[in-house]
Parts: sequence; structure tokens; C-alpha cells
Amino acid sequence: MTMSQYLRPNILAMAGYTPGEQPQGDGYVKLNTNENPYPPSPRAVEAMAEILRSDRLRKYPDPLGTTFRKTAGKLFGVDPDGILIGNGSDDILTILTRAFVPEAGLLVSPTPSYLLYATLAEIQGARIERVPFTKDWQLPRDWPWNDAHVTFVPNPNSPTGTAVANEALEDIAKALHGPLVIDEAYADFADANAIRLTKLPSVIVTRTLSKSYSLAGLRFGFAIASPALVRELVKVKDSYNCDALSLAGAQAALEDQDYLKQTVAKIIATRTRMQSELRKLGFDVLASQANFVWASRKDRPVKRIFEELKARKILVRYMNYPDFGDGLRISVGSDAEIDRLLEELQKLV
Amino acid sequence: MTMSQYLRPNILAMAGYTPGEQPQGDGYVKLNTNENPYPPSPRAVEAMAEILRSDRLRKYPDPLGTTFRKTAGKLFGVDPDGILIGNGSDDILTILTRAFVPEAGLLVSPTPSYLLYATLAEIQGARIERVPFTKDWQLPRDWPWNDAHVTFVPNPNSPTGTAVANEALEDIAKALHGPLVIDEAYADFADANAIRLTKLPSVIVTRTLSKSYSLAGLRFGFAIASPALVRELVKVKDSYNCDALSLAGAQAALEDQDYLKQTVAKIIATRTRMQSELRKLGFDVLASQANFVWASRKDRPVKRIFEELKARKILVRYMNYPDFGDGLRISVGSDAEIDRLLEELQKLV
Repeated sequence: MTMSQYLRPNILAMAGYTPGEQPQGDGYVKLNTNENPYPPSPRAVEAMAEILRSDRLRKYPDPLGTTFRKTAGKLFGVDPDGILIGNGSDDILTILTRAFVPEAGLLVSPTPSYLLYATLAEIQGARIERVPFTKDWQLPRDWPWNDAHVTFVPNPNSPTGTAVANEALEDIAKALHGPLVIDEAYADFADANAIRLTKLPSVIVTRTLSKSYSLAGLRFGFAIASPALVRELVKVKDSYNCDALSLAGAQAALEDQDYLKQTVAKIIATRTRMQSELRKLGFDVLASQANFVWASRKDRPVKRIFEELKARKILVRYMNYPDFGDGLRISVGSDAEIDRLLEELQKLV
Repeated sequence: MTMSQYLRPNILAMAGYTPGEQPQGDGYVKLNTNENPYPPSPRAVEAMAEILRSDRLRKYPDPLGTTFRKTAGKLFGVDPDGILIGNGSDDILTILTRAFVPEAGLLVSPTPSYLLYATLAEIQGARIERVPFTKDWQLPRDWPWNDAHVTFVPNPNSPTGTAVANEALEDIAKALHGPLVIDEAYADFADANAIRLTKLPSVIVTRTLSKSYSLAGLRFGFAIASPALVRELVKVKDSYNCDALSLAGAQAALEDQDYLKQTVAKIIATRTRMQSELRKLGFDVLASQANFVWASRKDRPVKRIFEELKARKILVRYMNYPDFGDGLRISVGSDAEIDRLLEELQKLV
């Protein structure tokens, strides 16, 4: 078979996004994909159990997620018609790329940052330009790519866990000719969020239930933007991109804000302890606004540490960015998991 | 806001796919979206309940759906690496379009047929060419568009419910320069399927669990193709396009072939009765190989009948194709639902 006969050249040429390892076996301390160590809200689980007992599985779900939208609109103080539902926030990022970026178009994001943006550009047959963060993890004031078809800024950023202020985002949004997507996958762990900026017609904020709501296995995310823009974006998504279970589970999860606050508070407490302990072990650790920390060191290669941890069934994420260097992105697990990690690290450094 | 500043012109210009109505209220006889009137396999529901009781919701699902692939590979007698998992078969059709069709490329499908193919071409910024079925619902021997980037042939076809033979599909596959996608959403209700044709490197068969498996609310579909091609297609899908619940439910559903056979047998029996009763009422009804029938008539406009039925809370799908005409696509419901339909139709014609 001659693949090149069938596939677009950009698809053939690309390597494909490599998600963090999902080990099939048991017994791993899994700190590599920023999952939440605590279970999801029992109310979310019960809402899904209710769907299983109902007549809803055999019928198509509501294409727009009307009741979810109402819940999200109320929670965030925005028009429900300005909520776009997605099969995880990756689906939202895909929809946005397809809506805005033509073939040979331009997608811009900061670096080091979420590697998926480059993959989305590759699938679309578009270019990506990366804007380096400043030394203190801010975005450059003089933004170099105002003519991008879409600009993705994750905030807080991965893998650094750092965040930039709303004022800086607003300045960039106003300078750009195209839309600014603020990817707030980790915003529930941060001091601030940018939802108020969605009043600007070019700003889109994306959210996921995979991290703070502990529902990575469910695949649900959403965007907040102007209703006029969401009406157009709906044309690009698959009609039934969210299933009946995830719509019900997501709605119940959002309605249980007390549970969210408790879980997030525990994670932030562990994050604080983890940062200080890792520093004691000689790691350079950035102050994190997310549910992970970025740890690097000057005295030895961290790739070796990553491998040694893996051999001990502790998975963290090793990342190596050109012009930036390598490090370990370590998810904030339970206190017991972090104790186990620290114990092994003590032997290794 | 100037939408045209942000959105690709093809997105602005398109109308968007209109899925069949999903009424929010109760009390409807819903025969408009080819849902299954019977519940899904209890084993599938139990497999999902098991996920809700487990630790799986908080973790990302397996990106490739390894255990589902093994089950599907065994069931269909194909290499598990030749199975591509999708968030409904719409997701699979989207992945295929993005992998094969460049901007300004060419997508071809028969007409009258599934309207989504045109939407997929529009989102991609590509052209669509439609090949009319012959008068006896076959595909023309002299296929006019051999240079398409992708060719979609639904078999059985919607809205007609008719099917073409494997020999005709094989002839087309061999004549085409690009891939042939045989959309087998309704194949479990038909006398034959084209899975053996996936031995050809250019043939892809797609399946859904929405119809025969009664899991429209779950969103799960898959493709069968050569492992070499599936490896490339994986690069185009969202990493975690299928959630933990749907992967478990889909696998259990496929493992329960006895249940599938029972459900399908009931639907086929009702379909036979429905066709004969509709003919007695003066409808022209095509012999269906799917879980719906196409009914038209010469003596009066069927749009009026569609509207009258809707006013009586019976939803069917009205469709009107240029150069073909209009008709009602009526899903095969339960016997009680079809009795209700026939009773109302008797008053209307």
C-alpha cells in the first residue's frame, strides 16, 4: 500500500501527539498526567448511575447540552448560549483550530507549553510559531505575532505551572487581529481566572473537568465565549460530541462546588508541602498555580531520575524543550503518594 | 464583532448539519433518528456501572482502547490493530475526512444519502460531488469521480434503506485512486456486510453502536481498516476520544451477540409488517435493509403528513432531495409505536 496515495502529506509527515503513559498494570504511583488523586463528586457519580437506570442510553443526547449550559452559565455568570460543550477540552481545542485556522494558516502559542497545540496545527496543515516566555514566566509585552489565525495561551501554563495576570492577557487580546484562546485547564488551582475577559468578542476561555473535577475518564470540557461566536463554533463540532452520561455527570459535578473546593484545598496544601520538600532535595521548583510542579536541577540530568523512578513504579513526566531545558512535571498526588515519591527521590539524589 | 475577522470563510458560509429533533418533553413517539426501541444489553449497562464503582473515572482512559480492539478484532476476524475507536461513528467520519481531504479537495458520496458528508466537506473547506443512485438503487457501473480524496458510500444507505452488493463496492474500490469508506451504520440489519473488503488497503468500513446496539446516548463507533492505515489515522484523532464508560460499555455490548441477534430479529419482524401496512395505506415503500423505511407517495405531499404526525406527537424525519423528491424516513420502533403510527396515518391518508 502506498500511504502517500491516500493521506494528506501533513498527516504522513507528523509524528502524532504522545499522551502521558497509562500503565495497564496496577501498583503504579501515577504522577505523570495531572490526574486528581481524589474521587469525583459522589453527586456526579450518582447522576451517571441515574442515566444507566433510565431510558437515555438508547436515545441520542441533547446536541447542545442545554441543561449543562444553564448550570455553567449560572455558575460563571455568563449567558448559557456562550457555553460550548466538548468531549474533553482537547475536543474544544480541535473545534477552535478547525474553525479559525485554514490550511497553511498560523497558530501561535507560548513556549515551553502544552505540546498538543503543535499537533493541532500539524493536523490542520498549518504553521505554528512559538513565543518564548520571559525569564520570569511572563508573556513578552511586545507580542510578535498579531496576525495569527488563532493564539493559544494556557494559563496556568503547563509544564511550568506559572500564570500570567489578566491585564497581560487583555493587552494581548486587544493587540491581536484574531481570537485569543485562554486554556484554563488548571484555573481551579490558581488564584485568578480570565472569565471576565470573555466579554471581549475575541476571547475564548476553555475548561476541562479532567483535573479539578477528577473526571479525566469521562471526557468533558467546555468553552466560554460570546454567544455569537459559539453559534458558529457549534457548526464545527460533531452534532453529538458529548454523551448522555458525561452531560449528566458534568452538570452534577459543577453543581457540587463545595466538593470541588474541598478537593482543591487538599491538593493545594499538598502542593505547598511538595514544593518545599523538593527544594530541600536540591530541585529548582517553580511556584505552581496548578495541580503539578515543574522540577529541574543543575547538578545532574533529570532524565536518569525519571527512569529510576519509573523502574520503581513511580511515573512522572519527563520533558525536554529546546532553548529551555529539561525537567520533571510531577502531578500533585495524595499525601501518601507524594511521601512515596519523596522517599525514593531521597535515595536517588 | 466582525465574525469574518476570525472565522474561516467556509465555516461562516455553511449552514451546519441539522440533526433530527430531540424533543425535551415526554410522550413522543420518536421515529425520526433511527434509535433502537429496545434497551441496550444489560451486560453493557452492568459494565458501565462497574466503571462508576471503580477508580477509573478520575484517570484518563486508554487512548487506543486496547481491550475493545481485541474484542472487536476477534468478533470480526480481523487484526485488532486494524480497529480505530471513535466517539460515535460521526467522530470516525470526521477523522477520515481530516486525514484524507485537503482544503479545496474533493469528497464524493452517492445521492440521496447521509447529509453529514456534505457538512464534513464544508468544515474542511473542500468540495463535494454527489453521484446519483440508479433507478433501482444501485451505484453506477461507470463511476464518475475516481480522483476523489475520499469516497463515502453508506451501505445500507440512508434515507432509502437500500443496499448494494459487495461486488459493486469492490469494483468501485479498485477503480478509485483514493480510499473508499463504506459506512455500515445499519449493516447489522442487512443481509450482508463488507468487512471482507477491508483486506484491500484502500477500504475502510465504519460501524456505530447507536443503532443495532441501542447505545446512541453513549457515543461509540469504530472503523475497520488495514493496521498500517489505522496507525496513521490515530494521529488525527483526539488522544482520549473515547471515555472509560463507553469503552467498557461498547466492549460488553459486542461480547453479547445473543442479545444483539434477538433485538435485531424483533426489529426486522416489525420492519416487514410496517412495510406491508404502509403499502396498504398507499405509500411507496422501498424494501429496507436498515432499521427504518423510506415512504413516499404520489397522490399528496408528504410534508403535510409529517407535520400532522408531529402535531400528534409522532416524530418521523421529512427529507427532500433535489432531483429525487421528498419522503418520510420512519424508524422501526416497537410494535406498539408502529401501531400508533399506523393508526394516525389511517386518519390522515
